Amino acid sequence: MKLLVVGSMAFDAIETPFGKTDKTLGGAATYIGLASSVLGAETALVSVVGGDFNQEYFDMLTSRGVNIDGVEIKKEGKSFFWSGKYHNDLNTRDTLATEVNVLADFTPQIPEHSQEAEILLLGNLDPTVQLSVLKQMKKRPQMVILDTMNFWMNTAWDKLMEMIAQTDVITINDEEARQLSNEYSLVRAAEKIHAMGPEFVIIKKGEHGALLFHNHNVFALPALPLEDVFDPTGAGDSFAGGFAAYLAKTEDLSYENIKSAIIIGSAVASFTVEKFGTERLQEISKEELKGRISDFKKLTSFEVNI
Amino acid sequence: MKLLVVGSMAFDAIETPFGKTDKTLGGAATYIGLASSVLGAETALVSVVGGDFNQEYFDMLTSRGVNIDGVEIKKEGKSFFWSGKYHNDLNTRDTLATEVNVLADFTPQIPEHSQEAEILLLGNLDPTVQLSVLKQMKKRPQMVILDTMNFWMNTAWDKLMEMIAQTDVITINDEEARQLSNEYSLVRAAEKIHAMGPEFVIIKKGEHGALLFHNHNVFALPALPLEDVFDPTGAGDSFAGGFAAYLAKTEDLSYENIKSAIIIGSAVASFTVEKFGTERLQEISKEELKGRISDFKKLTSFEVNI
Repeated sequence: MKLLVVGSMAFDAIETPFGKTDKTLGGAATYIGLASSVLGAETALVSVVGGDFNQEYFDMLTSRGVNIDGVEIKKEGKSFFWSGKYHNDLNTRDTLATEVNVLADFTPQIPEHSQEAEILLLGNLDPTVQLSVLKQMKKRPQMVILDTMNFWMNTAWDKLMEMIAQTDVITINDEEARQLSNEYSLVRAAEKIHAMGPEFVIIKKGEHGALLFHNHNVFALPALPLEDVFDPTGAGDSFAGGFAAYLAKTEDLSYENIKSAIIIGSAVASFTVEKFGTERLQEISKEELKGRISDFKKLTSFEVNI
Repeated sequence: MKLLVVGSMAFDAIETPFGKTDKTLGGAATYIGLASSVLGAETALVSVVGGDFNQEYFDMLTSRGVNIDGVEIKKEGKSFFWSGKYHNDLNTRDTLATEVNVLADFTPQIPEHSQEAEILLLGNLDPTVQLSVLKQMKKRPQMVILDTMNFWMNTAWDKLMEMIAQTDVITINDEEARQLSNEYSLVRAAEKIHAMGPEFVIIKKGEHGALLFHNHNVFALPALPLEDVFDPTGAGDSFAGGFAAYLAKTEDLSYENIKSAIIIGSAVASFTVEKFGTERLQEISKEELKGRISDFKKLTSFEVNI
């Protein structure tokens, strides 16, 4: 299956207790595309950047088999820029700067060849923009995966509800699930979110792993405990990219295979945080990924009889 | 194997968003003993109560096969009393009252028949008291399980270190593991705690489950997502009780079986929180426990191939 990804491409400047970067490659679509390329899924990105964006980043994505025909370059504009500083626990961060730049009036144009993609992954964007993508699809994708955040709950509730109603898989963090549903219990939160549209609700809990809800089924995957988290930037997008790419490669959208895709997403994300930015993501070999999957198996396997 | 439990027996008064109780049965040893009785392990409690303690509580424990020969009754004194109010999220609580009473000068006397118990579970107590128990054992138990908390790290560091050095399995929460080790990464924290003595480090993360570290192995069990948590009081002690009882019953102290014991502990604790105090713990049938174990299996099982 083809995977179409719509989201930001950006410059990030990151500071963690382990060091800092100058402007480096970032953005949701970037992380998603790179994560997908680890799996070798047929992936196309739709995004917008300014004239300041580096040609070498495009070359790197293309060389990894990621199609970037749908990335608009606004020569006169500047690329989205985010700068943040993580606290010592790496679970919290301060945003130092957000320059929206060309992303402010992003009007995605889906290339002809992507209008029949079977899987559509909508990165965290204004729900109005997300809806405009869906309208350009020649036929309804078999799976629409939505990432969103509390910002849109606070500023664009109605449009967000409209988008969620057309979503198959929503990925949000635990706080956002609680805000979206007004329920503290994640079981109740997932029930309410199911009722809004998505058949699958994935709740990302960072160092505590992820939960998948589907009908009355629930699956939980702990995160792999890591000696050091170097830079958590892009972990959620790497998860989404690995997740969607696995489904695209295996062409199986069943609950059982969606569980498997969660392992893949988590495994890919566990690499991302080992280095700054997209650095580690660009190095992952298939063998390493296999090793990480067996680490997850070891982490979670048990037998018990009473 | 015989299981010897040393810990508090108490009155609790609990308020949660779902209601409140007057003085009701509480205390670590109580929860541990009841949890152990679900598994039918040979269990003896050593504790101290005042003349105000209810005979019916003793009768209930005895009828469930829990030996209470080692529970001292100080007729002139009052039992330990704790009162607390949980916030809406049930993850945080305010202590409204702590009356230490007869627990203040608890000097446990281990009955003859328990001095050769193979498994010793030391509930959260002053480490000096915990050490005094160990000295009374005729031979070193095959497994010493220690529960402790930040209070003893702040007030009795040296004695706590002495106790931890003689511990095989330590159970603490994630914050306490970080405080004990001065490491934020739980992998590094566990390494440091291993070096203090315990071969097995169990980190309890409440609604996020538990981690087990042993040499370079790590096992993670997510918590079962529950529709409602009614009252979290005693969840940690129920976990410890189910855990230790399973090891006592199966007489197998291997890493693999310790993993299984974590499932049992988590399953028992998942019942405890469904009602106030020890109420639910007193009702669990073997069939229900089996059902809960298969819920955990369903929650965590996956297959993945790349």
